[in-house]
Amino acid sequence: LTERFSLRKDIIRWIIFIQIGIITALIACTIDIIIEELSRRKYTFLYNSVKDNVPLSDASDRDLLIPYLYWLLFSIVPVAFGAAMVTYIEPITAGSGIPQVKSYLNGVKIPRIVRIKTLAVKAIGVITSVVGGLAGGKEGPMIHAGAVVAAGISQGKSTTFVKDFRIFKAFRDDHEKRDFVLGGGAAGVSAAFGAPIGGMLFSLEEAASFWNQNLIWRTLVASIISVFTLNIVLSAYHGLNDFTFTGLFNLGKFDTPLKFDYFELPIFMILGVTGGLLGAAWNSLNTKINKFRKRFIPWKIGKVLEAVVVAMMGVTLACLMIYFINDCRPLGNDPTNNPVQLFCEDNEYNAVAALWFQTPEATVRSLFHDPPGSHKILTLALFTVVYYVLSCATFGLNVSLGVFIPTALVGAAWGRLLAMLTYYVFPQAEFLHPGKYALIGAAANLGGVLRMTISLSVILMETTGVETSFFFPLIIALISAKWVGDYFNEGIYDTQIQVNHVPMLTWEPLPQYKGLKARDILSKPVVCIKLHDSANYIYQMLKKCDHNGFPVVDDVRGDRRSEGRVCGIILRSQLIVILLKSLYVENKRFWLPETSIQTFRDVYPRYPSIKSVRKLDEKINYTVDLSMFMNPSPIRVNPHDSVPRIFQIFRALGLRHLLVINNENRIAGIITRRDFIYK
Amino acid sequence: LTERFSLRKDIIRWIIFIQIGIITALIACTIDIIIEELSRRKYTFLYNSVKDNVPLSDASDRDLLIPYLYWLLFSIVPVAFGAAMVTYIEPITAGSGIPQVKSYLNGVKIPRIVRIKTLAVKAIGVITSVVGGLAGGKEGPMIHAGAVVAAGISQGKSTTFVKDFRIFKAFRDDHEKRDFVLGGGAAGVSAAFGAPIGGMLFSLEEAASFWNQNLIWRTLVASIISVFTLNIVLSAYHGLNDFTFTGLFNLGKFDTPLKFDYFELPIFMILGVTGGLLGAAWNSLNTKINKFRKRFIPWKIGKVLEAVVVAMMGVTLACLMIYFINDCRPLGNDPTNNPVQLFCEDNEYNAVAALWFQTPEATVRSLFHDPPGSHKILTLALFTVVYYVLSCATFGLNVSLGVFIPTALVGAAWGRLLAMLTYYVFPQAEFLHPGKYALIGAAANLGGVLRMTISLSVILMETTGVETSFFFPLIIALISAKWVGDYFNEGIYDTQIQVNHVPMLTWEPLPQYKGLKARDILSKPVVCIKLHDSANYIYQMLKKCDHNGFPVVDDVRGDRRSEGRVCGIILRSQLIVILLKSLYVENKRFWLPETSIQTFRDVYPRYPSIKSVRKLDEKINYTVDLSMFMNPSPIRVNPHDSVPRIFQIFRALGLRHLLVINNENRIAGIITRRDFIYK
Repeated sequence: LTERFSLRKDIIRWIIFIQIGIITALIACTIDIIIEELSRRKYTFLYNSVKDNVPLSDASDRDLLIPYLYWLLFSIVPVAFGAAMVTYIEPITAGSGIPQVKSYLNGVKIPRIVRIKTLAVKAIGVITSVVGGLAGGKEGPMIHAGAVVAAGISQGKSTTFVKDFRIFKAFRDDHEKRDFVLGGGAAGVSAAFGAPIGGMLFSLEEAASFWNQNLIWRTLVASIISVFTLNIVLSAYHGLNDFTFTGLFNLGKFDTPLKFDYFELPIFMILGVTGGLLGAAWNSLNTKINKFRKRFIPWKIGKVLEAVVVAMMGVTLACLMIYFINDCRPLGNDPTNNPVQLFCEDNEYNAVAALWFQTPEATVRSLFHDPPGSHKILTLALFTVVYYVLSCATFGLNVSLGVFIPTALVGAAWGRLLAMLTYYVFPQAEFLHPGKYALIGAAANLGGVLRMTISLSVILMETTGVETSFFFPLIIALISAKWVGDYFNEGIYDTQIQVNHVPMLTWEPLPQYKGLKARDILSKPVVCIKLHDSANYIYQMLKKCDHNGFPVVDDVRGDRRSEGRVCGIILRSQLIVILLKSLYVENKRFWLPETSIQTFRDVYPRYPSIKSVRKLDEKINYTVDLSMFMNPSPIRVNPHDSVPRIFQIFRALGLRHLLVINNENRIAGIITRRDFIYK
Repeated sequence: LTERFSLRKDIIRWIIFIQIGIITALIACTIDIIIEELSRRKYTFLYNSVKDNVPLSDASDRDLLIPYLYWLLFSIVPVAFGAAMVTYIEPITAGSGIPQVKSYLNGVKIPRIVRIKTLAVKAIGVITSVVGGLAGGKEGPMIHAGAVVAAGISQGKSTTFVKDFRIFKAFRDDHEKRDFVLGGGAAGVSAAFGAPIGGMLFSLEEAASFWNQNLIWRTLVASIISVFTLNIVLSAYHGLNDFTFTGLFNLGKFDTPLKFDYFELPIFMILGVTGGLLGAAWNSLNTKINKFRKRFIPWKIGKVLEAVVVAMMGVTLACLMIYFINDCRPLGNDPTNNPVQLFCEDNEYNAVAALWFQTPEATVRSLFHDPPGSHKILTLALFTVVYYVLSCATFGLNVSLGVFIPTALVGAAWGRLLAMLTYYVFPQAEFLHPGKYALIGAAANLGGVLRMTISLSVILMETTGVETSFFFPLIIALISAKWVGDYFNEGIYDTQIQVNHVPMLTWEPLPQYKGLKARDILSKPVVCIKLHDSANYIYQMLKKCDHNGFPVVDDVRGDRRSEGRVCGIILRSQLIVILLKSLYVENKRFWLPETSIQTFRDVYPRYPSIKSVRKLDEKINYTVDLSMFMNPSPIRVNPHDSVPRIFQIFRALGLRHLLVINNENRIAGIITRRDFIYK
C-alpha cells in the first residue's frame, strides 16, 4: 500500500513538474511578446519622429528637441506606472527576485514571495520597465515568475483567489514546496534564455541550498518542457511553420563557428581579470548607492520619482551621445530595425542611435553580431561608460528588473571596444573578431558581477549557439573574473542578501565560530508550553510573544515551564490553528473525524495571526493536549556541543529551531537561524 | 588569526585541486598512449597476417586459421596477465571502479580503494584488457584513477610507500578527503573523454552523495586543468604544433552540423524507449551472469580462466563473422586504419573486418562517422547481437574495464542499423543520416544501462563536437530511455552496489520505513565505555567486539556501563591509538606536548588493528580519560523518533553511528548504516 501511494505520489510529482514547465513558458512568452511589440512600436515612432523633425543631410540648427521630448514621455509614463505598482501594491517585487528566491530556497520565510499577486505585479513591472528603456533585463523576474508558478501549482491552491483545489495536498510542506520552487526557477531561466541545461545549472549553482539526485533531473525535465513550449509558441507567433530552434538563440546565433588559438588564452584571461575588477567595482558602487537610497529616500513617492529620474537621465545621456557624436556608417549590412539617418548622408545611418534605439537585449545581439567596423571607438567607449553608470544606478530602484542583460551588455561593449583598440594598434592581428571578444567580454563582466561560472558559460553557449569547444575560452574568462572579483567582495545577489540582513545560512560555518560552544550562542530563557496546558495560557502567551517555535515540556515544577523536561516542539501557527478550531480536550467529541496533521495542511502556508482568534471567554479553562499535534522528535543538542558542528546539523537539515538540552533532558536554551548570523 | 588560517587552507585546497587535475591527466595520457600504440601494433600485425595468409581474390580453400590463432594469442596473453594481476594482487580493481568510488563517496568504508597500489594494478589491468580486445572501455578505470590520485595528493602521504610528506595535514579527515576524491573522479572522466563540463556533471550526477556550492567549481577547475594538460601532452605526442582541440574529440567530430526536424522527435523517443528496454534487459542479464559467476566460480584460477574464455569467445565470434559474411565495400572513403581486403576484390575492403580490427572506441567512431552505405544490414545486425552478448559477459569479469564504451558501441550499432532498415523501407526519407542515428542510439543505450541524463548528453556533445541545439534530441532519447529502464530495474552501477550488499544510503528513506520508530530498528544492548575506564577493560573489549563506535558514559551503577549516561562517542581506531601510544592518566607526564586530535591524524587513514597492541602487563590497572579524546557532541535521538526523520538526519550529515537515548540521557540503543539497509 505504502509503495503504491509512493508511486502515485511520484507520478503526480512528475505531472506537476511538467505543468510548471508549460505554464512558466507561457508566462515568459507573454511577457516577451508584449515587450517586443511595445518596444517595436515605441522605437518605430521615435524613428519616424526623428525622420520628420531632422531635415535630411542638412546641418541646419533644428535639433533633436521634439524626438527627445517624445522619448522622455515614452520612458517616464511606463516607468512611473511600473514603479508605482511595485511601490504601492507589492514592494517585494522590486529588483530581480533572484536574491529573494535564493533566500526562500535556503529556508528563510519571506512573506508574499510566491503569491499570484506578486507574479502579476512582477510581470507588469518588468514589461513597463523594459519598455520604458531602463537598463535592465527580463531574466531575473522570469525566474521569480517560475518560482511563483511552481509554488502555486504544487500546492493546488491560491490564497489570493481564496481557492483551494483540494489536490496535491500531500505536497503541502516546506520541503516539497522548495523542490518545486527550484524547478520553477529553472524553468524560468530556461524560458528567459531558451537554454535548458543552462537554466537547470543556474538554479543548482545559484539558487539551490539543498541537493538531491532526483531533483537534478526533475528540474531538467521542467526546463526542457519549458523551452519546448516557448519554442512552439514563439514559432507560431513569428509565423514559422517548421518550428525551428533558431527563435530561441536569444542573443543571436553565431553563424560562422568561433575559432580561437592557444595564444589567445592569456588574452581571455586578461579580459576575465578586467571583468572581475569592473564587476567588483560595480557591486561595491551599487551597494553604496543602495545604502544611500535606503537612508535618504524613505518615502514611497520618492522611490517612484527616483525611478523616473533615472529613466530621464538615461534618455538624456543617450540623446546627448546621439547629438554630439557623429558616427555615420553605410547602410546595407546594418542589423538594426531602425537605421536612423539623422545628420548622416543618404545611404548612411547613425551608429550611435542604432545602439540606443532598441531594447538592451537587442543591443547585446548587435554587439555580438555586427560586422567589424560598425562603430567608432569613441562611440563604444562612451556607451560603455554611460551604460555602466546607468545600470549601476538602476539596479536597486523600486522596479522589477534583472541584472543579467545590462551586465552582459556592458561586458559586450568593453569586450568589443578592447578588440577594436588592439586592432587599431596592431592592424595585423586578424584574430581580433570583435563579436568574439564581445562575447568573451560579456562572460567576463557577468562573472565579475554574478560570480557564477558553469551555468553562465552554458547559458552563453546555448543562447549564441557557439560550438562546445568554445566553452574553454568562456570558462577561462569566467573563472578569472570570479577569482579576481571574489578577492574584493561577494557576488551581487549575495551582497543584496547581506545588505537586507536576510538570515541566510552559508555553506560552511563562519570561521569566527570556531571554538564556541552551544552555550555561548543560545538564547534563554525559552518560552515553553506544557504537554497539557490551559487554552488561556497559550492564548495569552501567543499575544505577548512572537516566537515561532515553542518547546513542549512536562514534569514541570509549579509554573516554571522553562525548566521542564522536553517532549517535543510545536509551531506558533499550529497553536493558532488549535485555538481557532477549538481543538480542546473538553470538546473532543465535536472534533471532525479526520482531525490530524491534515488540519494544518489545509491552512498552509498562510496561517492566521493570533489576532484572528476571538477572546476565549467560556473556553478559558479548557485544556489543550499537545501530544497529538507536536513534533515529538525535534533535534536536540547539548550546551557543550561545538557551534561549527551544530551549524552543520542546522544547515544540512534546514532547521529553524534547535533545542539545547541539559543532561536531564531539560531546556537549556534554543538556537535559531539568527543566532548564526548576527553574533 | 583564524581567518588567515582559513585563507591559507583555501589556497592550499586550490593548489591540491590543480595538482589533481594535472596528475590525473598525465596518468590518463599514459594509459591512452600505451593502449593506442599496442593496439595499433596488434592490429597491423593481424592485418599483415591476413594479407600473407589469404590469397587475394582467390576463393581457394585456405582459411583464416593462422590469423585466427595469432589473434587468439594476442588476446589471451594480455587478458590472462591482466586478470591474474587483478585477481591475485588487488581484487578491488576488478570492474569499472565507479560503483566503488560512488560507495566511498557515500561514506562507506571500502578498504584499499584509494591506494597507490590499487592505481597501479588498475592502470595495467585496463591496458591489458583493452589491448586484449575485451568488450570494455578505459573510462571507468580512469575515474577510479583520478579518485586515487586525489586521495593520495590531498593526504600528502602514501601508506603503500610508507611515506608521509607531513603536508596537507589539515585535510586529513573523511569529509575533506571525500571532496577531493570527487574532484579527482571528475578530472578522471574529463581526461577520459576530453569533456570538462561533462566530467564535472558526471561526478555530480552519478558519484556525489553530498553537495556544496564551492565543490562545484573546484571540481570544474580540476576538470579543466585535466583536459588542458591532456590536450597539451596529446598534441605534443601526435606532433601537432598548434595545440588544437581536435585531438580531444574522442568519439570523432561531426564536421557538418547535425540537423533535425521536429517530426523526428517521436523517432528519437522511440529510440530512447528501445534503449531503455535493451538497457534494462542488459542490466538484468548481466546481474544474472554475475550471480552465477559468484556462485560457481569461487576459485581464483577459475576467474582468470573465465576471462580468457570470454576473450577467446570474442575473437572466435569475430572471426566467424568475418569468415561467413561477405560484406565488401569499395576502398576510398574507408576511415579505418587497416582496410583488410580478405576475400574481397581489389580496391575493396571487408567491412566486417573493419569493425573488428580496432579498439571498441575506434569502432564507435566509425559507426558515428562512416558514410552512408558502409555496411550491410546483416553485418550490423549480427555485430549488434554479438557485441551485446559479449559486453554483457565481460562486465563482471575479474578485469579492470569500464562499461561506457561497449554500451555506447552497442547503441551506436543498433541506432545505425535502425536508420538503415528504415531507409531501406522508405528510401525517400532523406533525413535518416546514419551517423546521427548512431549517436542517438548510443545515447539511448547509455541511458538505458547507466540511467544518467545530463552528464551523458553533455559528454556525447563534447566528444563529438555537435552544436548545442543538438542537446535536445540527445536528452529526449536519454530521458525516454531512463524512464523506461527505471520501470524495470536500477542503473548498472546501483545494481552492482546492491548485488555486493554495500550499505549505501539512498537519497530518500525507503517507503517501508514509514511509521516505524527508532525503537523498532535500534540495536541493543550497546557496548559502552566509562569516561574514566581502565586500560584493561578497553583492551579486552576491543578484542572481543568489532564495533567501530562506542558511546562514552558516566554515572554508571556498578559495572552496568550500557545503562550509563551519555557523554560522547569514541571510535575504535581512536581507542587503539590511545592504547598504542599509552595515553594513560597515570603517565601523562610522558605524553608528547602536542598530544591532541593531531595524534590521530598522523595515523589516518590506515589505523592499526587491536592485534598490534601488545599485552598490557604492568599497565593493566592504568586509567584512560576519554574526555579529551572523545567526540562530545554525537547526534542523539529518542526511541520514539520516527525512522524517516532519523534517516534524513543520518543521510544529510553522513553519519556512521546515531545514539538513541531515553529521557534520562541514558543509552537506549544505537543505529548504524546497516540498520537502514537490511531490515
